[in-house]
Amino acid sequence: MKRKLRMGMVGGGQGAFIGDVHRRAARLNGDIELVAGVFGTNVEKSRQCGAELFVDPARVYPNYEAMIAGELALPADKRIDFVSVVTPNLMHYPISNAFLKAGFHVLCEKPIAMSAADAEALGKTQQASGKFFALMHNYTGYPMIKQAKKLIADGVLGELRKINVEYSLGWLAAPNAGKQAVWRVDPKQAGISGCMADIGTHAEQLIHYLSGLRITAVSADLASFIPGRELDDDGSVLLRFNSGARGVIFASEVSTGEENNFIIKIYGSKAALEWHQQSPEDLIIRSNDAPMLVYRRGWPGTGEEAQKVSHLPAGHPEGFLEAFAAIYRAFADAIHADLNGDQPVLDFPGIQDGIDEMRFLEAIVANSAGDAKWTAL
Amino acid sequence: MKRKLRMGMVGGGQGAFIGDVHRRAARLNGDIELVAGVFGTNVEKSRQCGAELFVDPARVYPNYEAMIAGELALPADKRIDFVSVVTPNLMHYPISNAFLKAGFHVLCEKPIAMSAADAEALGKTQQASGKFFALMHNYTGYPMIKQAKKLIADGVLGELRKINVEYSLGWLAAPNAGKQAVWRVDPKQAGISGCMADIGTHAEQLIHYLSGLRITAVSADLASFIPGRELDDDGSVLLRFNSGARGVIFASEVSTGEENNFIIKIYGSKAALEWHQQSPEDLIIRSNDAPMLVYRRGWPGTGEEAQKVSHLPAGHPEGFLEAFAAIYRAFADAIHADLNGDQPVLDFPGIQDGIDEMRFLEAIVANSAGDAKWTAL
Amino acid sequence: MKRKLRMGMVGGGQGAFIGDVHRRAARLNGDIELVAGVFGTNVEKSRQCGAELFVDPARVYPNYEAMIAGELALPADKRIDFVSVVTPNLMHYPISNAFLKAGFHVLCEKPIAMSAADAEALGKTQQASGKFFALMHNYTGYPMIKQAKKLIADGVLGELRKINVEYSLGWLAAPNAGKQAVWRVDPKQAGISGCMADIGTHAEQLIHYLSGLRITAVSADLASFIPGRELDDDGSVLLRFNSGARGVIFASEVSTGEENNFIIKIYGSKAALEWHQQSPEDLIIRSNDAPMLVYRRGWPGTGEEAQKVSHLPAGHPEGFLEAFAAIYRAFADAIHADLNGDQPVLDFPGIQDGIDEMRFLEAIVANSAGDAKWTAL
Amino acid sequence: MKRKLRMGMVGGGQGAFIGDVHRRAARLNGDIELVAGVFGTNVEKSRQCGAELFVDPARVYPNYEAMIAGELALPADKRIDFVSVVTPNLMHYPISNAFLKAGFHVLCEKPIAMSAADAEALGKTQQASGKFFALMHNYTGYPMIKQAKKLIADGVLGELRKINVEYSLGWLAAPNAGKQAVWRVDPKQAGISGCMADIGTHAEQLIHYLSGLRITAVSADLASFIPGRELDDDGSVLLRFNSGARGVIFASEVSTGEENNFIIKIYGSKAALEWHQQSPEDLIIRSNDAPMLVYRRGWPGTGEEAQKVSHLPAGHPEGFLEAFAAIYRAFADAIHADLNGDQPVLDFPGIQDGIDEMRFLEAIVANSAGDAKWTAL
Repeated sequence: MKRKLRMGMVGGGQGAFIGDVHRRAARLNGDIELVAGVFGTNVEKSRQCGAELFVDPARVYPNYEAMIAGELALPADKRIDFVSVVTPNLMHYPISNAFLKAGFHVLCEKPIAMSAADAEALGKTQQASGKFFALMHNYTGYPMIKQAKKLIADGVLGELRKINVEYSLGWLAAPNAGKQAVWRVDPKQAGISGCMADIGTHAEQLIHYLSGLRITAVSADLASFIPGRELDDDGSVLLRFNSGARGVIFASEVSTGEENNFIIKIYGSKAALEWHQQSPEDLIIRSNDAPMLVYRRGWPGTGEEAQKVSHLPAGHPEGFLEAFAAIYRAFADAIHADLNGDQPVLDFPGIQDGIDEMRFLEAIVANSAGDAKWTAL
Repeated sequence: MKRKLRMGMVGGGQGAFIGDVHRRAARLNGDIELVAGVFGTNVEKSRQCGAELFVDPARVYPNYEAMIAGELALPADKRIDFVSVVTPNLMHYPISNAFLKAGFHVLCEKPIAMSAADAEALGKTQQASGKFFALMHNYTGYPMIKQAKKLIADGVLGELRKINVEYSLGWLAAPNAGKQAVWRVDPKQAGISGCMADIGTHAEQLIHYLSGLRITAVSADLASFIPGRELDDDGSVLLRFNSGARGVIFASEVSTGEENNFIIKIYGSKAALEWHQQSPEDLIIRSNDAPMLVYRRGWPGTGEEAQKVSHLPAGHPEGFLEAFAAIYRAFADAIHADLNGDQPVLDFPGIQDGIDEMRFLEAIVANSAGDAKWTAL
Repeated sequence: MKRKLRMGMVGGGQGAFIGDVHRRAARLNGDIELVAGVFGTNVEKSRQCGAELFVDPARVYPNYEAMIAGELALPADKRIDFVSVVTPNLMHYPISNAFLKAGFHVLCEKPIAMSAADAEALGKTQQASGKFFALMHNYTGYPMIKQAKKLIADGVLGELRKINVEYSLGWLAAPNAGKQAVWRVDPKQAGISGCMADIGTHAEQLIHYLSGLRITAVSADLASFIPGRELDDDGSVLLRFNSGARGVIFASEVSTGEENNFIIKIYGSKAALEWHQQSPEDLIIRSNDAPMLVYRRGWPGTGEEAQKVSHLPAGHPEGFLEAFAAIYRAFADAIHADLNGDQPVLDFPGIQDGIDEMRFLEAIVANSAGDAKWTAL
Repeated sequence: MKRKLRMGMVGGGQGAFIGDVHRRAARLNGDIELVAGVFGTNVEKSRQCGAELFVDPARVYPNYEAMIAGELALPADKRIDFVSVVTPNLMHYPISNAFLKAGFHVLCEKPIAMSAADAEALGKTQQASGKFFALMHNYTGYPMIKQAKKLIADGVLGELRKINVEYSLGWLAAPNAGKQAVWRVDPKQAGISGCMADIGTHAEQLIHYLSGLRITAVSADLASFIPGRELDDDGSVLLRFNSGARGVIFASEVSTGEENNFIIKIYGSKAALEWHQQSPEDLIIRSNDAPMLVYRRGWPGTGEEAQKVSHLPAGHPEGFLEAFAAIYRAFADAIHADLNGDQPVLDFPGIQDGIDEMRFLEAIVANSAGDAKWTAL
């Protein structure tokens, strides 16, 4: 018999977009309870936030070190099972590293770290700890992404040739884009990249997740369209893959009027697929010798991989939250299995996705600044 | 300071579609906890279901009467605050009636009862009880429906002329459509209508909610396309409204291949709107003298009525669950206000919607069976 | 070897929408030449129009009687082969009747006449004449309509159950809608119906064309939303078919903001189809046991019936004009065959479509005015 | 008073896709007549084709030199006014050059030549001749492209920042793609590029046409996915513009399942636009502070630039043919003006578009083969 898992959180104070999403996603399946946290750097606000979340005030800590110490001091049957790390990029690595070392499972927002070296270091900590680490590449939680992955794995598309990914947002089109924007374009908090770290990594990770291909070389043109903005707010990248396939990623946060327009199109020798994050329930399949097919979440023809992360019948739209919750559920399932002594299934993005995304980021930043056509990964 | 509300549930055992939706929706906002229930008529299965939902076995009751007695026997600070009624139609009225009489708030699935007379009786019980009653017409919880209602109320459409509603599902196209289907076409459990009770009432209620108009006469043609099926699985209705406006509802559960295709188009003298439940984030506005406008959930131009029931930024798709959760949130807010001695805002469908839907159902069933063109409501 | 066919035209002067469409459609295939005409009732304007169309001034006639006489006076190898009748409704029957009697093939705009009796009389004239008569129900010329007809004929949809047709325009939403509108709502020129004669007949004809079913009874609610407008500008009709199938047509010319929104959805026991005139290159097929299929004009999977009326490769959008031209081509092909002594194929709407549409109109107008639920056809 | 213009054609024999499109487009407006031609290199087939097109056998010539001689030998009032050149790429330059020299107006398929040098040479011939030269970049003939150009020129988008163009076809995904494909991937007939010459030039030209910006540097990755295919069948290009704007073109003819999927998205500091060739009647405008706007062909709000190349009312779909015909009409209008001694308006693509497209092609082919990041134009 399962018990409810106990979750802690670092980050996600009032006004933080992604922290709230994490909490709602964690709640959805009914087997995770938020019991401890550091909800931002302002202690008073953090306490208030904790109170609104019905967290015991004794377990709202002033900082993550205190949280680790405090939780370790509790009896095992009260202590958190895992922590969600939802801070700005800068703190992903040190916090994740500390919790893993202290023996807690960790679920962390992307990108994993500020450098590939740190990502690799985190990998070593994780291996030594024997604990689970999930990286929140939430788009892999969408049912129709599971379906797409399955169709590719089954060879439906044939040999993959071209992968085109567009990821356009408009929210940074003006110089002042609100509190959420500040840290994302500050090198000290966000790292070597703005737009590409924020959304380009989703593109890179989704390509890898779906295709199984590895990017071997990139040619990039990163831009910052707002005077004084230190990090890229736009970037286009030509891709070459280990198989001979090619591709394009163009991502932007200054695409005026775009919401969260993430589109992936994969062309193979036999067929092609198209998926739009803003209409996530459709997966379009085209070929040169048959009418267009549209797989729909929850509808016959869509396989069990997709069905496993789907809750409502077809036509009752699911969205971003359910995809996010699918990552939480997979992570929670692994912990439940571990608690029961069963073999866990690690069906969520992890350390290797994080290392890959940092290598990709470092390569495109270097390439964009230089004169060489290609930079190898 | 708010406390978590304690919810009970009647119905919603294993394999029940709508019970699970209610629970997930109730969880989403983090301030409702499921603590008691009768999860179906089979006591053993109900217990197992309760255990999986982390409900104290002592509060999994054999029937709703026992649940009322048991909860009343608990101290007030442990007792449920409200009950969710998610049984087949037949039991909506007696269970809701009993809980209201016992002093509990009630949230009930639609349709409210088996007859308009029972709906009216329930209204009297509710008034006497002083407790809240919410009827789960979940589509009114969608942000873009709130936006549509606001635009109409603001006169953007001018005088309303024509309202066309399509509601098509295919799930009953074959004779045997699984467990969910059995009670929906059984007059003893579903009442005088199948399809029209199940989905036609959503259409009628949404028209009323959005337009503020009242249907004054109907002309209907209900059908049952499967030999031996006792209740309608399809129906078309011509509508006349108190204002002189006209309309059409056509609803079907034998529309092969359709998922949950609920479309409403409202035409006024100045402009028109169109909304598709399967693409719920768009609200299309057309006029004869300007380009088409598309309001999007979370995007500038969309008003605060919509924003209040929206959580994620635009482009991060929300769907059915969030709309459902909006009804729970409004209901919970009323209870919180009541607990705090504040004036509650009753921003959810209730008794009058239930009376209206039953009168509509009775009128179309009578009209469809007779020779007269129009039946007045 | 084919020769160019010689076309005459009655109607279609300056500012007439449909006359210009007829001429452009007739030109498209390169084997029809406009050589004579009466381009409106104003003789001077008609002459000017003829000159702009490069028509020999000697063959621009003052009225249709003069045109018949004039053309008969020419040698057979100069005389027109057929006439296009594109006047207001009132004159369709007398002009068509006169040209048929005089031994000319006739292609006429819909509706065929002002009454079913006249339509039947025209049928007798046509039979006696041995000449061809085409009724311009242009929507049957769309490739994907041909494809839809083929799929239904092949049994892909199974037994048809429900047919829903929406036809919405907004152009008459205001009292004054320009010159094109005047005659369409004038009983003397348009007949017993406005909106339903103008577009409702397209709906009725397309249903019949696609399904092969016959409407056996109707229940209708026609409306006129503009004070002083004598004919209907809106109407909704419940349909019963000879097979037991049912349906709905709702058509309106006061649907503010709508362009020419003609949608047909046909549901069968095995599958369903959906087609939108404003996106005419797609034909959507849904079933309860497979992903959605989208047939596309010109793409593999789409059959030869569609291909025959398609010219451009898929993805090079064709539209209204090509569908219109397909009727002209079929009509021209019949004339070519006749000239060559071959057996003509009459693959275009004709007298029977006209009789059907008039009977439908008369039935819905009568029903809408009365108290009986159903009017039989 | 206008007279009908006399057109000749070189190329466009049986089975040629584009020649037939040219003829249908030329016919549409009713003021152009095909009277002479060389319909392919096979004289017998050319004669047969001419006969089917009702061309006088005496004016079906064995080659273009004979055609020039033959037409010059005719009296001026029988002689062709202009020639359409619709051969494979190789012959565009020599034929156009010869007809211009002989004193005929020329309308030629793109790309203009096999090299930028030849394009420039043609420009000199044209200037010396005083005759008109139109290059068939047909996409500029779409009404909503005219609308897009106008909105950009009016500053609605603000300062342009990013231009993303996708042009995907699947027709060359397999090694053998039929007769149309053979010459397009043969360097002798097509030149230095396959896919990029065929469709990449449309992308480059449309960007320039709409934005008025000039590409200053490119970084390209051209590919050939079919073993043995000598020219590119796929290519991706990063763009830098004179204004500081950036962009991406990715074009492919091996995008399995794609028809003619040409999409352009232009992002400015104030607003953005999106247009899809396969849904050409919509022009989507987005901004960060208002709901999405959709301009529709023929609908209020859409300006006169678009209206001038639009014939049917909104909702009566126009497509590829009408856009093509718009180029013919503009070209014919210039000739009519010239014949009447009026000042002609040259509202069609011409020599400079041809020079630009060849420089672009030469730059991307060179860049793709080298190690440098950027190649300047």
